Formats: sequence, C-alpha cells, structure tokens
Amino acid sequence: MNREALSSEHSDKLFERIYDYVLERILRGEWKAHEKLPSVRALAAEFRVHRLTVFKAYQLLKQNQKVYVKDKSGYFVHPGNRLSVETRQDPIISAYVQESHLSEIHQVQAAYKLSKAVLDPNLLPNLYFSEYVKQVFDLYPKVLGTYSTTQGDQELRERLCRYFVDHFHFDLTADELLITTGSQEAIDLLARVMVKPRDVVMLERPTYSPAIDVFRRQGAVLLAVEIGKEGYDLERVEELMRKYRPRLFYVNPTFHNPTGYTIPAEQRKRLVEIAHRHHCLLVEDDLYRDIYFGKEPPLPLFTYDTTGTVIYLRSFSKYIAPGLSIGTVACRPAIMKLLVRAKSLTDSGAPLLNQKIFLHYFFSRRLQQHLDKLRIALAVRKEIVEAELAATDWTWISPEGGFNLWVKLPEEVPMDQLLEKSIEQSITFVPGLICDPLRGHQSWVRLSYSYLNEQQLREGIQKLIRVYDTLK
Amino acid sequence: MNREALSSEHSDKLFERIYDYVLERILRGEWKAHEKLPSVRALAAEFRVHRLTVFKAYQLLKQNQKVYVKDKSGYFVHPGNRLSVETRQDPIISAYVQESHLSEIHQVQAAYKLSKAVLDPNLLPNLYFSEYVKQVFDLYPKVLGTYSTTQGDQELRERLCRYFVDHFHFDLTADELLITTGSQEAIDLLARVMVKPRDVVMLERPTYSPAIDVFRRQGAVLLAVEIGKEGYDLERVEELMRKYRPRLFYVNPTFHNPTGYTIPAEQRKRLVEIAHRHHCLLVEDDLYRDIYFGKEPPLPLFTYDTTGTVIYLRSFSKYIAPGLSIGTVACRPAIMKLLVRAKSLTDSGAPLLNQKIFLHYFFSRRLQQHLDKLRIALAVRKEIVEAELAATDWTWISPEGGFNLWVKLPEEVPMDQLLEKSIEQSITFVPGLICDPLRGHQSWVRLSYSYLNEQQLREGIQKLIRVYDTLK
Repeated sequence: MNREALSSEHSDKLFERIYDYVLERILRGEWKAHEKLPSVRALAAEFRVHRLTVFKAYQLLKQNQKVYVKDKSGYFVHPGNRLSVETRQDPIISAYVQESHLSEIHQVQAAYKLSKAVLDPNLLPNLYFSEYVKQVFDLYPKVLGTYSTTQGDQELRERLCRYFVDHFHFDLTADELLITTGSQEAIDLLARVMVKPRDVVMLERPTYSPAIDVFRRQGAVLLAVEIGKEGYDLERVEELMRKYRPRLFYVNPTFHNPTGYTIPAEQRKRLVEIAHRHHCLLVEDDLYRDIYFGKEPPLPLFTYDTTGTVIYLRSFSKYIAPGLSIGTVACRPAIMKLLVRAKSLTDSGAPLLNQKIFLHYFFSRRLQQHLDKLRIALAVRKEIVEAELAATDWTWISPEGGFNLWVKLPEEVPMDQLLEKSIEQSITFVPGLICDPLRGHQSWVRLSYSYLNEQQLREGIQKLIRVYDTLK
Repeated sequence: MNREALSSEHSDKLFERIYDYVLERILRGEWKAHEKLPSVRALAAEFRVHRLTVFKAYQLLKQNQKVYVKDKSGYFVHPGNRLSVETRQDPIISAYVQESHLSEIHQVQAAYKLSKAVLDPNLLPNLYFSEYVKQVFDLYPKVLGTYSTTQGDQELRERLCRYFVDHFHFDLTADELLITTGSQEAIDLLARVMVKPRDVVMLERPTYSPAIDVFRRQGAVLLAVEIGKEGYDLERVEELMRKYRPRLFYVNPTFHNPTGYTIPAEQRKRLVEIAHRHHCLLVEDDLYRDIYFGKEPPLPLFTYDTTGTVIYLRSFSKYIAPGLSIGTVACRPAIMKLLVRAKSLTDSGAPLLNQKIFLHYFFSRRLQQHLDKLRIALAVRKEIVEAELAATDWTWISPEGGFNLWVKLPEEVPMDQLLEKSIEQSITFVPGLICDPLRGHQSWVRLSYSYLNEQQLREGIQKLIRVYDTLK
C-alpha cells in the first residue's frame, strides 16, 4: 500500500469519527434542534485534523438533513432528528428512535386477539399441575421459604444440562446454564451485559419486536439483515460483520418469529464459523423448537459451536406453563459470570417453587403426551386460518412450526387505519413494521393462531378480511 | 449584581463544565491511562472560552490526581482513575467505580452466615403453604396456563390497595400499584426508568449495598447524605438538593438497612415537603416495616405525600415466603406507565401462581399469627448477639426492628484481613464500606441475626470475636 492510500484511509477514518461524533450528540439530544454546532475550526482543533475533513463531515451531515446552515453564521442542528431513522447506504439505523410498543397492542381488549403469540390456556396440561405441585411440596416442604441461587436451582440445571447433551449434543456443563424468568429476561440481561451505547447489534429483518426495543433502549446501533425462506444471504452477513463489527447478532433460526422460516441445516455451521471469524456473538433464541408440524427441525446453532460464539436461549414455559415463567440460557463461563452478576441486581433468582414444579413436569412422561397433542391442535388451527385466507389474494409461506403466520396484503392499505378499524371490530393483529428494525414491511401482518380456538379463529379472520375489503 | 460578578459566575460555570467534561471521559474509560489529552488551545476553541479557564480546569484536575504533566508535551490521563472515588468538597462521587459485589460474599460457603439478611427458613410458615397452594389450584385451575398482566394480578392489586389505604392512610388506587419480583426488581426498574447517565442520585450513608450498585451501573453520579440515630440533618439534605438537583433520593427510613435507625415521625412530613420543593423524587424502600420489636414504627413517607413526590417500595416475601418473590411499588400514573413499559421488556409480569398464593396467605388470619411469633423469635436472636458482644468493646445502637446489627469495631483492623480470616473460620459478615457510597465506615460491620438459629448465632459471634482479637 503506498503512502497516499494509507493517508487517505486514515483521513476517511477521521472523517467518519467526526461525522459520528456530531451525529451521536444530536441523536442523544445533547445538542438540541436549532442549537449552534461547534465551528469547523473548533472541531478541527479538537480532533487535530485538517479543517477540510470537518467541512466534509458537516457537508454530509447537511446532505443527510442532520444539520442546516444559516446565513453565514455556521451550522445548526436540524429539527426532528432525535426520532428519525439513520440509514446512509446500509441497513444500519441509529438507536434513540421511538419504541414499537407491542405491549400496547397487547393491552387492547379484543375478542379476536390474532396479535397474541401465546398459547390458548385450554391447550395446557392444567389438570395435572396440581398433582406436580403436591409432589413438590412433599419433596421440598420448605420450598417457599428458600431462595434459589441467582443462577438457578442446581438440580434443575443438572437435569436440563443432561437433556441438552442427550438431545442436541451440546458440549455443556450445568455451570453453563442460567435459569431466567422466561426468555424475555434473558434477552434483557444479555443486552445489559454485552451491549454498550453505540455498539452495533445485528438483527434479522423482520424480527421479534421486543428484542428491537431492548437493544434500542440499550443505545445500540441496529444493523438489519434479511431473513428469507432459504435462510440468510451468508455473504451479505459476512460483509456486514466485516464492515460494522457488530457485538452480537440476535437470531431466531427455527420457526422464526414472525415469519415461521427455518434456517437450513447446511447454513447453520457456516454461520457459526463466520460469526466466530468476526468476533460476533450469536444469540440464538430457540423458543419454538418443540412446536413442529412435520419433521423435527435441524439442530441448534449451539450444537456447532466449539469456540464460545453462540449464546443459546430456550424458553419452555410458553407451551408448558406460562404461569411458571421458566427460561434458560446456555453460554460459556466468562459471559455467565456477567449474567449472574447482573441478575443478582435484578432479583435473587427465579422463584424456587416454579423451578421445582417445572422440573417435575418437564421430566415426566406427560410432557411428551402433551407435546404430541399440542402439535396436532396447533397444526389444525393453522390450517383453519390458511383455509380462510385461501379465498383472498393475501400471500404467505406456510410455516412448518411455531405460532405465527406472516402474511403480505396485496394492496398498500394504510396500516394505522387497518389496525384501528380492526380494533373497532374487536380484532387485534401485529403490523409488520413493528417487527422490522428498519420500519419497512408496511403491508405485512403477523397473525397468531396459538391463542384463539377454532371457532374464534374462523370468525376473527373472516372479520379481518371484511375490514380490509372496506379499506382497499 | 454588577457586571463583574456576573461574568465571574459565568466563568465559574464554564470552568466546571470543562472540568466535568474531561473527568467524565476519563472515568468512563473513553480516555485511557497515559493517553494524551486535548491541548489547552483545542479545548478552549471547542468550548469557546479563554485558554486560562481551560488551564485552571487542568490545574485542578492535576491537583486531584486525575491528570499529570509530562515534560512540556502536555497533559496525560493519570492511571488508576477509573476505580477511584471523586469527592471534591461535597460527598458527591462519580459513577463508573467498582461495584461492591455483595453477591460474591453471599456465594461463599460458610457455616455462620452473619452476612445473610434473609430469614431462617425454619421461621417461615412452611407447613401451611401447601394448603394455600391447593386452595389456589381449586379456585383457579388454569393458574399455570395464564400470564399475569405485566402490572400484576388485578385481584391482588385491589386487595393490597385496600390494605395500604386502611393501615397507612395512603391515597391510592389499584392502578397505582405494580407487582414486582421482589423489591430488588423494583429498584432496578426505577433506576432504569428515572435515571440517565450523569443524573445525580442521592443515597443515605450507609445504605443498602445493591442499591449503590444499581444506580452506579446506570451511570448516576452518587451524592451521599448521613443517616444517624436521630434521622437526617434536613438542612443539609435541602442544601444538597438545592445545589445538586438530584433526580431522586433512595431512602430506607424504617429500621434502616444496615443501621436499624428509624427516621422520627416529625421529620417525615418535612422531608416530603423539602423533596417536593426541589423536584427530587423520594424512593422509599419499606422492607422491614412489619419486623418491629417494640411499638409500631411511624407511618411511611408515602402517607404524607400529596404531590406525587414519593415512590413506595414494599417487599413482603422476605419474611413471608422468599420463594414467592413478591414485592410492590406504589406510585403515580405517569411513573407507573414508564415502569410497566420497562417491565414488559423484562418479563410478562410476576408469575400468576406466586401472586395468587401470596394473596391467599397474606390476607389470611395466619399471617398475623406468623408475624407475632416472628417478631419474638427475631428479638430473642438479636438479644443473643448483643449478649455475646457485651463482653467486647465493640459498639452499636440496639435496633428496634429489622434483621441487622450495625457494629463499630474499636480498632482499625484491616477489614480485608478480618473478612479473609473469618471466612477461613467459616464465618461471613458484610464489611461496612460495602454499604457506604463513599467507601468509608472502614471499621464497621453489618451482622445479621435473621438467618442463623440461636446456637449458631452464639457460636458464630464468639468465633468472630476470636478472629478479631488475633488481628488487633
């Protein structure tokens, strides 16, 4: 490399540093709308660079509508920046934009909650639970008087560890497992421990909406990568990792939420290798693994991990007992230490009673019977929704597992209006843009078939189609 | 005020801004040990101030060992700053210093856990719980199949609300209550919702150690105020509030942890008024209210609040059923909305089973019987510890409630060594400095009498005294 190239690369970096420096303060609201920015001269002095470099950064900021020029008195903060989306050329967006508030849709009272990716309580093994609870009290009479350790009950971690080793060939010890209050807490803890403001976090597009909110709140810069029915474009993934050095990539490779896609087995090992090469952690959220309608899904990414690249999140309570709120994280000791410390400042571990009830049910023969029935019931419900939609020109890829149908509406109906009119008819659904870190997928919706019974699903979908028809 | 005074005040502010600007980056580790700092000229240009102002800021930073001067080449970051305590004249300290890791002391295996402010499981009403659990399953057969709302079970919130209104004259509705996974989660959520980096948070000195960690991790600047057996010096509190405009003051006014002090009734109303006047929220942690040995403690601060100044945290599970992990927060709707949103990204509400069991036990007649017995048992244990200590020249104020004795050792024994030697003898305790945001109280220890039985307490204290005697 000759000297000129070196110097030009060096100047590029400085340029980028100044661009980011200014933009960061604007996005964080430290420098407010219409506030005067430091002069070119002052910034040049501070960064010890040529004034032209600062000038160029300001020009690009102006072009991207981050700043404006007034008369000859200098640069000022463009209004409205705090809430806007920063794209440049790549699908990278800045944090500090508004949250999606899926939780607010969930709070709407409605008869047809197609928004709810939660299991119908009638499909749960309610009848048996009081038996297991009795068993737990007989075995551990002081269970309610005892705190669990922060990391989680030793007995449960040992049994779960054996389960993961036996079923998925994990290379794992019980000390590498943490018990959490569901997998939402796991994502939250990981974000707090691994992500600092301005760190880059890679997300699938679309993805699980609360994950977007959690990483955003942490101040992360979000980087989106498409997930399709054939999986990822791994060359694109590698290019983005090389270019932006994301701290982690949050993936949901099995019956993906919201699309239902499953990353093929042959991509899994390669993804782990690529991430390892670029020092990017893979956070694998494996919530729907047991909910398959045809054959079992491919092995988790964690199975292929020999280098501590993958952090594995598995929640069980979603389809066993939501009231127990039990999730688990598998990861290597260095990260585990950070997670346990963070959890100790949040609570003193998942309630022991819940862990023990879960343990006794999960390792009983009844679980298998429950799952067999559950898969059939959900497949039937999914088919009901698909049968209703068959009469429309809406399109979707039939999922082979999970709780959701990811549907594209043929015409650009204003989503706000569709949601509003639907709520008037006592129907809720999840607008696609809430699941997209880039706020695209404007004409997509997520319809969950897990919560309503057959009759309600039929009625709800028919009503939704009628609402749509009145708007198009 | 003449023009000169105005200008000098203006220059003071600029001076402070530059001092803080440099210090903040050093403490955050953005500017690392031995790294060269921006020149006086560059900073003067950036802040548009006279070079003398920057020079003065650097001189004070040098004096306070934050930076050093090398030859004539400029200012450099002094090593070791990230972990040091920043005091200037007032008891204000910067964040980003090491955490205290009380949790690590708790992880030590020991026969005599005088560090553990947790109830002896044998003192809990274990026998009755299975009965309440059965009752809950009979009443709500689908309890394990159902998520609670994020804010907490409506029935529980209504009953608790009535309890607070009846007993403590709270002006409260059920919508102003949040159910949390113990009060640790409540502190954590509040810190995340109310405190941004560089916000000032006021703490008692000493205080509950994990609270220090939580606010520190949030990037807060900590401001400490003494708590004594007569309460606070309210003039000092007001002076600090006026000067530093803290976002909130975390207080533990009733059988305070670790000291056992109780703020007198006549100070409570005044504190609420002062805090209101200075727009400082009071976060009242009321965990030991029911554990009194003599007469009932004065009413909570929340009782005196008519302006939304107090946020009230109450945990019950500590002395009822740690395994249930139930706590509650009372606050006004604006803050409640933020808390519920933050909680929705952490979990989907405390597990419903735990909430229902708690409800049925808490409002049964058995609770009162349990509390009556518990108060006697704890008073006896406290007296045992005091009887053993009577033979020494250690000093303490006998607490009228709570789980802890706050003890001053007469000679400056190196605390590290005392803890180390104690652990060798299978004894743990909490060193005072862990409870002090300013890392003072070097010769104080917190001894909890809640976890060990009479015999263990006697032996543990005797052994601890012997370890101390070998070191002095």
